This record gives sequence, C-alpha cells and structure tokens, in this order.
Amino acid sequence: MELKILPNINTPEDLRQLPEEQLSALCEELRSDIVSELSVNPGHLASSLGVIELTVALHYVFSTPYDRIVWDVGHQAYAHKILTGRRDLFKTNRKFGGLRPFPSPDESEYDTFACGHASNSISAALGMSVAAMQKKEEDRHIVAVIGDGAMSGGLAFEGLNNASDKPNNMLIILNDNNMSIDQSVGGMKQYLLNLHTSSTYNRLRFRAARTLQKWGIIDENRRRTILRFNNAMKSLITRQKNIFEGMDIRYFGPMDGHDIKQLVRVLKEIKDMKGPKLLHIKTTKGKGYQPAEEEATIWHAPGKFDAETGERKVDETPKPPKFQDVFGETILELARRNPRIVGITPAMPTGCSLSLMMKEMPERTYDVGIAEGHAATFAGGLAKEGMQPFCNIYSAFSQRAYDNIIHDVALLDLPVVFCLDRAGLVGEDGPTHHGAFDLAALRPIPNVTIASPYDEHELRRLMYTAQLPGKGTFVIRYPRGRGELLDWQCPLEEVPVGKGRTIKEGTDLAVISLGPIGKDATRAIAEAERTLGCSIAHYDLRFLKPIDEEMLSEIGSKFSKVITIEDGVKAGGMGSAVLEYFSDKGTVPHLVRLGLPDSFVPHGSVAEERRLVGLDNDSIVQTISSLLKA
Amino acid sequence: MELKILPNINTPEDLRQLPEEQLSALCEELRSDIVSELSVNPGHLASSLGVIELTVALHYVFSTPYDRIVWDVGHQAYAHKILTGRRDLFKTNRKFGGLRPFPSPDESEYDTFACGHASNSISAALGMSVAAMQKKEEDRHIVAVIGDGAMSGGLAFEGLNNASDKPNNMLIILNDNNMSIDQSVGGMKQYLLNLHTSSTYNRLRFRAARTLQKWGIIDENRRRTILRFNNAMKSLITRQKNIFEGMDIRYFGPMDGHDIKQLVRVLKEIKDMKGPKLLHIKTTKGKGYQPAEEEATIWHAPGKFDAETGERKVDETPKPPKFQDVFGETILELARRNPRIVGITPAMPTGCSLSLMMKEMPERTYDVGIAEGHAATFAGGLAKEGMQPFCNIYSAFSQRAYDNIIHDVALLDLPVVFCLDRAGLVGEDGPTHHGAFDLAALRPIPNVTIASPYDEHELRRLMYTAQLPGKGTFVIRYPRGRGELLDWQCPLEEVPVGKGRTIKEGTDLAVISLGPIGKDATRAIAEAERTLGCSIAHYDLRFLKPIDEEMLSEIGSKFSKVITIEDGVKAGGMGSAVLEYFSDKGTVPHLVRLGLPDSFVPHGSVAEERRLVGLDNDSIVQTISSLLKA
Repeated sequence: MELKILPNINTPEDLRQLPEEQLSALCEELRSDIVSELSVNPGHLASSLGVIELTVALHYVFSTPYDRIVWDVGHQAYAHKILTGRRDLFKTNRKFGGLRPFPSPDESEYDTFACGHASNSISAALGMSVAAMQKKEEDRHIVAVIGDGAMSGGLAFEGLNNASDKPNNMLIILNDNNMSIDQSVGGMKQYLLNLHTSSTYNRLRFRAARTLQKWGIIDENRRRTILRFNNAMKSLITRQKNIFEGMDIRYFGPMDGHDIKQLVRVLKEIKDMKGPKLLHIKTTKGKGYQPAEEEATIWHAPGKFDAETGERKVDETPKPPKFQDVFGETILELARRNPRIVGITPAMPTGCSLSLMMKEMPERTYDVGIAEGHAATFAGGLAKEGMQPFCNIYSAFSQRAYDNIIHDVALLDLPVVFCLDRAGLVGEDGPTHHGAFDLAALRPIPNVTIASPYDEHELRRLMYTAQLPGKGTFVIRYPRGRGELLDWQCPLEEVPVGKGRTIKEGTDLAVISLGPIGKDATRAIAEAERTLGCSIAHYDLRFLKPIDEEMLSEIGSKFSKVITIEDGVKAGGMGSAVLEYFSDKGTVPHLVRLGLPDSFVPHGSVAEERRLVGLDNDSIVQTISSLLKA
Repeated sequence: MELKILPNINTPEDLRQLPEEQLSALCEELRSDIVSELSVNPGHLASSLGVIELTVALHYVFSTPYDRIVWDVGHQAYAHKILTGRRDLFKTNRKFGGLRPFPSPDESEYDTFACGHASNSISAALGMSVAAMQKKEEDRHIVAVIGDGAMSGGLAFEGLNNASDKPNNMLIILNDNNMSIDQSVGGMKQYLLNLHTSSTYNRLRFRAARTLQKWGIIDENRRRTILRFNNAMKSLITRQKNIFEGMDIRYFGPMDGHDIKQLVRVLKEIKDMKGPKLLHIKTTKGKGYQPAEEEATIWHAPGKFDAETGERKVDETPKPPKFQDVFGETILELARRNPRIVGITPAMPTGCSLSLMMKEMPERTYDVGIAEGHAATFAGGLAKEGMQPFCNIYSAFSQRAYDNIIHDVALLDLPVVFCLDRAGLVGEDGPTHHGAFDLAALRPIPNVTIASPYDEHELRRLMYTAQLPGKGTFVIRYPRGRGELLDWQCPLEEVPVGKGRTIKEGTDLAVISLGPIGKDATRAIAEAERTLGCSIAHYDLRFLKPIDEEMLSEIGSKFSKVITIEDGVKAGGMGSAVLEYFSDKGTVPHLVRLGLPDSFVPHGSVAEERRLVGLDNDSIVQTISSLLKA
C-alpha cells in the first residue's frame, strides 16, 4: 500500500489537523505499515491491529500529551508509537538500544506509565486524574485503555471499586475483544457479553438526544443534561444497574471499536462529562489482517512472516525444545500417572504450554484469567483438599502472587508446585518482564523448596520429584526460550531434595551455578581452562533452598576462591545464600557473585543483556581470570 | 447471664442435636460468653459478635468438619472456636502457646484455611470445591464467608470471576455490615446497597414458592425448579442481571443475618443447589453489645473493658506515643507545609492513624479499601503527575503490593513514600501478621531507598527527608506499638540519605542494628559491658539501602567481630546486605546475624516472640558474650 497520509504525521498535532474523512484511510495506512514492519521485525501484531481506530480516535479527540492516555499492557501500542513521533525509529522496536517494547515515560512524553503487567491502568489513571483535580488542572483528560482480559485482574477491580470514591473525571475505555493472549475466561467475560442487552437502549437514547440537538430543539449542554437524566431514569426503571453504573461509573456502549467515525463522535461527546465514566467498545484482535483475525493467539507475537501470504517463517530444522514445552509435555506425562495432579495457569496456557495438558485433560486444567494471586490461593485450596496442583506463572508476574505464596500456601505447608517460567533475563520484552527477583524474594519464605534445573532433563526430574508425596511447597524456576538437548525425553527419576551435584572436579577455583545459566558456566570454564591453563571445579547447586550444606562444606574446605553464577538479582540471591552459609560457619572464601545488578536491565537479545550485566561467556572467563590472580 | 445450653455443646455435632427453637437462646449465650471473656482477655470483639447467628446456623446446617467453612479474616471466628471444642481453651486465646488468633488448620480440623489476610476465602474455597468434584466427593459442601470490606480486595474479585468457570458447588456468604475495621469504602459498597432494590422481589418469590409447597401443590424439587425458572424469568424481564448473577453465580438476598430461624431455613434451602451461589446477608458489627454496635471501629479490638458498663479500661498514665501516631501527627504537619502531599491507606485509617490527616484534610487523604496493590499503583499515578503520596501499608499486607511497588513505582523511579507499619514481630496477631519479609523482599528492587528509624525522632526526620524533592521511591518501616520517647515532637530535619550513625563508640566488637530494635540493642550492650567488662561499639544503620559503605568500611577496618540485629528475616535481610558488602570488599569479619529464623514465628507477646527467636535482651547479651570468646 502506498502511504499518503501517514508520512506527514509526525506528531498527534499533525493528526489533529486532518479532516475527519481522512481518518479511515489513515487507519488503513497504519495497519499496512505495522504489518509490513512486523513481517521483518518481529513484535506484537494482533493486539496492535485491534486498536488502530481507537488509537487514532484518542489522539484525534484528546490533546495529547497534555491529556494522558494510559495503555494497559503495551502490546497494543504500536500505532500509538508511530503516531507520536517514533515512526522513523519503529524499525528499532524491541532491539537493544532501540525503541522499548512497551510504552515508557523515559522514552516519550506521550507514554504516561509502565505497562508491562496487565490490569494496572485504571489505578494509575485514577491517581493521575485525582492529581489533576488536586493541581486544579481540571481540563486535563485522563484516559485508561484496558482490555477485557486485563479486566479479570484483581487490580483492575480494585481500581474500579475506588474510581467513584473521590472526585475525578477519568475515562476508562474497555477494549473488549474477548481475548487475553489466549481466549478470555471467567464470569466477567460472561457479564460483558450480557451487557449487549442494554446496548440498543443506549444507542436509541443517544440518537434521540442528538436528533433533538440537530433540529435545534436543544443545545449541547441541554442534550448532556437529558442524557444524564435518562441515565437516572433508566436505573429507576430497570431497578438494577450494571456493575459499572452500580459503582457510580457512567457506562456507555458497547459500540463498534472499528467504526472510526462513530468513535470520534462518541469520544467528543463524553470527554468533558464530569465524573468517572467507561466506554465499552468491541474490537477484533488482529483486525484487518486476515490470518491474525483468524488465529489471534498465534498472531499475538507471530515472529517473521510473509506480509502478502500470511505465511509465518517457521524454521523447521530440529531444535532443542523450549523449556515451556518440556514443562507442558512433562506435566501431561505426570498427570497421566498421578490422578491428583491438576494444572493451573493465569491466562497463559499457550505461553507456558499447559495447553498440551488442557487439550487432553480439560477437566484437570484451569485457566483462571489474568489473576496470579488467585491462581496461587486457588492452588492452595486444591492442595488443602489433597490435590497436587502445578501452578505455572511467569516469574515476573509471580510478583503479583507474593503474598498468596506466603500466606495461602507456604504458611499452611501445602504441596503446591509453582513452576516459574520466564525466570531470569527474557530478552526483548525488557525490564518489566525479566524474572529477576524470584530467588531473592522467595528464599526467605519458610517451608518452601526452591530449585532450578541445569537442563531439560533436570527440569523433568525436578517436576517428577516435586509431585511425590510429602514434598510440600515447591518452586521450580526456568528460563524463557530453548534448552540445548535434542534428546530431552529422559526417564522421570527422583532427585534428592536439597542436594546439588558436581558437574566437574577441579583444583584452583570453584564455580557454583544455579539453573540453566550453568550450561554457559560450563562452556566458560572449559574456555578458561584452555586459555588460562587452570583447573576449575563446577558445582550445580540445583536447590537454592534447602541449600546443600554438605556440598558447600566440601567446597569451603577445598577452595579459597569461589564464584557464584545466577540469572537473578545479586542482592539476597543465590550467591548471597552461599555467602550466608559460609559466614555462619565462620570461614568465608574469596567469593565473587555474578548475577543481575541493582538496576533495571533494559531490553535487547538475551545475549546482549547478559553482556551488559557481565553474565556472558567473556565476562565469566574474565572473572575467573581475575579471581585466579587475586 | 447463666449459660444453660452452651456448656453442653462440645462439638458441632452436639449443636446439631438441638431443636431449632433453642438456637436463638444459644446465640445469646455465645454473645454473653464472648463479651465476658474478652472483657478480661483482649481480642477482636465486634466482628465476632456480628456473625454469631451465622456461625450457629452454618454449623447447624452443614456437617462440619466434613463440610468446610472458610472464614475470610479470622477476627470473626470466636463463636466458631467456641462451638468447635475450644471453649475451655478460649481463655488462652491469642496467648503464647494458647489458641491461635485466627483459625488455623494446625489447631483444629474445623479450621480449613489461613485467614489472616483479607479477601482470600473465595479463591481458597473454590479450590476446595473443585477438589471435591475431582475427588467425586460431591456431597461435600464448601462455604466461604466473606465481609463486604474484604470484597473490595482484588483477590476476592479474581475468585468470583473464576467461580463460575468450572463445575463447583461453592456457597459464598457475603457478610455485609458496611465495615472493614473502619467504614467500608468504594463502588462495591455502593453497589451492594443498590442490591436492596431487588430484595423485595426475591423475598416475594421465595415466599410464594414456599407457600405452594406448604399447600402441597408442589414438592421440594419442583419448588426449586420454580425458583430456578423464576431466576431466568427475572433476568429476561429486567434485561440486566446483578453482577453475581451476570457472572453466573446464583444470588440470594439480601436478608437479615441476625434472624437465626430464617438463616437456618434459607441455608437448608440452598445448600444442595448445584453450581456456585452467593447468599447476601446484612449484619451489624458488634451486634447485641450496645457500645460495640455504636462504635464498631473502636470495639474492633477494644482491649480490656467492664462488660457491664461498657467502659474501656484505658490506662491514662502518660506514655510514649505509638509509632503509628507519630506517623499520623507527622504527615499532618508535613502536609500543612507541602501541598503536594497526599495520604493513602488501604482500609486502615484508624490502624495507621492516617485518620488524623483525614479529619483535617479529607480532600487529600484516600482510603482505597482493602486493596494494597491498588494503593501502590494509585500512588504511582499520583506521583507521576507531581504529587507526593505517602502510602501507609502494614508490612505483612504490603506483600500484596510487591509487584506494584516494583512495576508501577520503582521502575518509573517515582517519589512515593511507603510507610510500612507493623514491621517486624507484631505479637498476638501472630504469623500471618508479622512484618517479616519486607526488608529482604524490597532490598533487591532498584531505585528504592529503604530506611527504618531508631526511634520516634528518627521516624519524623525520615518522613521529612522522604518528601523532599528528588528522593525517589522511599520505604520507611517501623513496628507496631509504642516508642520510648515522651518528648517525641522534635524539629523536622533532613537526614542524609544512605548514612547511618554511631550510637556509641567501642573497641572489642561492633553491633550494627536497624530500626527500633536498636534501642533493645543499646540496652543489651550496656548490660554486656557492665557484666562482661568489655567495650562495644553500636551503629544504627538507619538505611538498608543505599547502604552506608563508608560506615561499613570503617567498621570493617576497626573490628574483626560484628553482630547485626534486625527485626526481620535473616535470609537476605540487613545482616545479609552487610555481609555482601564485606565480601565484595574482600574482607569479612566474624559476623553473627541476629534476626527472624527460617520458620513462621508463632503468636504471643512481642517479648515472648523475641525470646523464642533469640532477639531478646538475654539472647543479645549471650551472643555478645559468645562472640567475644570466639
């Protein structure tokens, strides 16, 4: 498609100069631009296509950046980026040093808040809206855009619950496409479907009022008064309000979120209404790109593809499995044998591959919606009654379940297995998605066993071990992406809890690693021995907790120089636990702890990120070299 | 009151032998028993009085312990304890080694889950209900009892949202008294009020169906069918369902929760209905005890009182202030000077004394409901727009806001001051309420300053410092209870961020403490010097982060023996941070870390708890003595 309008839009101010008739064409150009760019530079496609009209309408109607748009989950914000002066840079999207994966206030004044974790937009926008009132900037509009998936998160409800409590003029756009990354689930989804029944009434009401205004019978102000009055009448008549109206949040919709003309008109109509309000729009994820519309989950982040044919460029050469698939295959194997096993995911069946079990055993798998806290407590309830839940949560999102893991699982010493996927550095999704804090945050919790597998075989063995009777609360963390073993399907065998293992013997220095970063350590050690002519022992700690005191004692007695390597924060992490052990025993070797620094690690490839934080091969070799000389 | 029925009730099975006519009298006896017991042995009064009829009805209708009652927040469970074989032990309630403050599965088979933190009952009960289906124990009833206050928590919503998704027969009792500890707030409260409008209809419907049954026109099964059909009709007619019905959870109520006859009848009617259902009851917090009915917040946990007159036994001798009051007075002082300051509390205005500011500046204080996650993200939104929020959360409950602090505040480097009250050991409320994990969990988060005051003066100085421009995300943690200074109102002065201070010089050994436990350390040091004839230096670290490297370097150069003392978990905590510093610098002194162990600390007085974990005076002196000899 030849782009005629888009190249002239450098800021939303340019957009606002366009006549309304051109907006529809602009949307098509944006769509085409995003599809062609993402076909070569992978990113999040389907969500962004779904909100193109909304994005154009918002920047057209509202005076951004003075007015604030708060995106809930930044997947959808590509049109927003392109319209806000970042079209030229868009080819650097998600690349190291390039545009960030999600809107970020550090990058642009049009980006108003963090949006890596779902469901936070209403709370943040409410804070902004209340701040505008406090600062007497009542002409500032604050708009939160939240999907129906994100609406299943408790945080969104807490925000809603609080929204009507203090004076504010926030507008919430509920972008309802019936999807998270996978299909939406839960009662709220059902509830939103039911709201359709009121749409005809709302439409009629709006049309009638507008007609009166058009005919000159009433003016703009009076029309609004009538609408408000009608709202009150409606609730008197039906004797029941919908949940939003019942919470004193004015409700409009549902309406077609791809009708740009209508969107612009309605937004203009409601933007200056006082008090909190919610506009419910219906959109299609992947809108306008046939393959993405048909299979929105696959096209959430499709990788490279042929923009013309929609053929995804999948590399067919045999590769080691993704860790998530090893989880998915293994839980299914285990569940076939152990009838007590159930699988739980907060809205990530495809992302964590629980979908495999879901397909074979739908009655034993639970997608609980974007609700990590509930996932953990729900698992606690199941475990309390004798089931053996595996609760799979991305490490970064498990921060949402911190209290639930403590209070609803560990305190009761319940046998829930938490599989934390995407632990450690995750690459292009950047700082909001790194699984950096899990080891340090979970280590102080009593009753919890924490493990991380060296490779795919160990992941299988740990999962097998965790579901054996009497193992209590069990955390297994593993990274995003692929392992290294083509023959990953080893027998399922028990691993002794709290026992590490010796990867290789050595004499000059000991390396202790935890998790698959141990593989990188193994390579770096080989290189160091080759190039530096030294002898290095390598231990896979395997369990952060209980820590292998016997092994550490042996290391302490044999070595005066030790390096710890972990894919998590150094502060309070594995190296810190090792140090605590040595200190408590009264003899501390010269210890160098490698891990994540005390700063948020930016996005890029995992390799680039590792280099940045000193966890790449060269850095490890360098550290060994320095310590040997020390 | 002379107790005639209650003394014969040793288990719920005894209760179930009573004729229905006696239940009302039993309720009065229970009420009298609880009031008289609590008048001498302080505990949570008002909530327990509010659910006496409900408790009796539940154990009367359901076959506990085979059927499961999940209490949301254990404050209310005194009648439950008394009826389930613990009447004789009730005088040990909340005492060290005695009955636990909240229901606990370790204590009784009638206690089904942890209930220290609000809003978890629906999720846990859903897990149990689903487990019953999995185990083909479909005759097992699962009942969650949740207050309207707890219903404002996102976790409750996540549970509700998930409740209709998978086959389960859970019954949710919504105990609506319009209260948390303070008055309930938020849209949900409003919404529940509105539900009154449908109550007449529901009542009529029930009565009509029952009458038909009484007259022999329909049988029990048919009556239920008719009720179900009516439900469907109703939603067809009104075209809108209430939120619960809209989420496919059958709704009954609201009804009077103190009408024991009616309660028993309705519970019997609905208990075997398939699918998730919710019974909305209206109760009065403090019911039946006049003073508590009138001032439910004060009578939430009134301390000792005269049961006859209702006079609370308040000790009037001048005492040092509670830390919470120092917070409350100081934020008010600061807010008078700094117009950017706003105060936020998740449902604890009285408990954290933000109520003082609320009274003078209602428009600048926000009680956001039981919603710690929202409180933090909302604060982030306010800070993003230039306000200076103080967000006060109890340390243990701040675990609910862990992700929000990371993702919505620290990542954006926003100037939110988190005041974590009830940090460290809290005494009688026990393991669910100890603020044990905050230091270890927050320390790894980049951009965050973490401080704890040595005394009330330092709390004021830290609060003053935290709100100065450019201080970023700032955590101040302080304990439950009183400080030690009668003259606590010192001038507000800036403290250098990241700088500790020397409490006293010494030569043989250094003690590093953080927070008000430093006062205990000061006393123990004096005793040790007196009895052991040694010279001990004492440093108040003041800031866990950034840590005072200069001071630590000095300590490292002067001392080969160091003790760290903190009122938080040892794993990854302050001592661990000190150790990391020394190890990174290459010289580690002989270091003993005192703090909380790797186990959940039981309830008791703070003094008893400290003795148990080795943080009392004797233990500190003993540690000093041992280290000196080492």
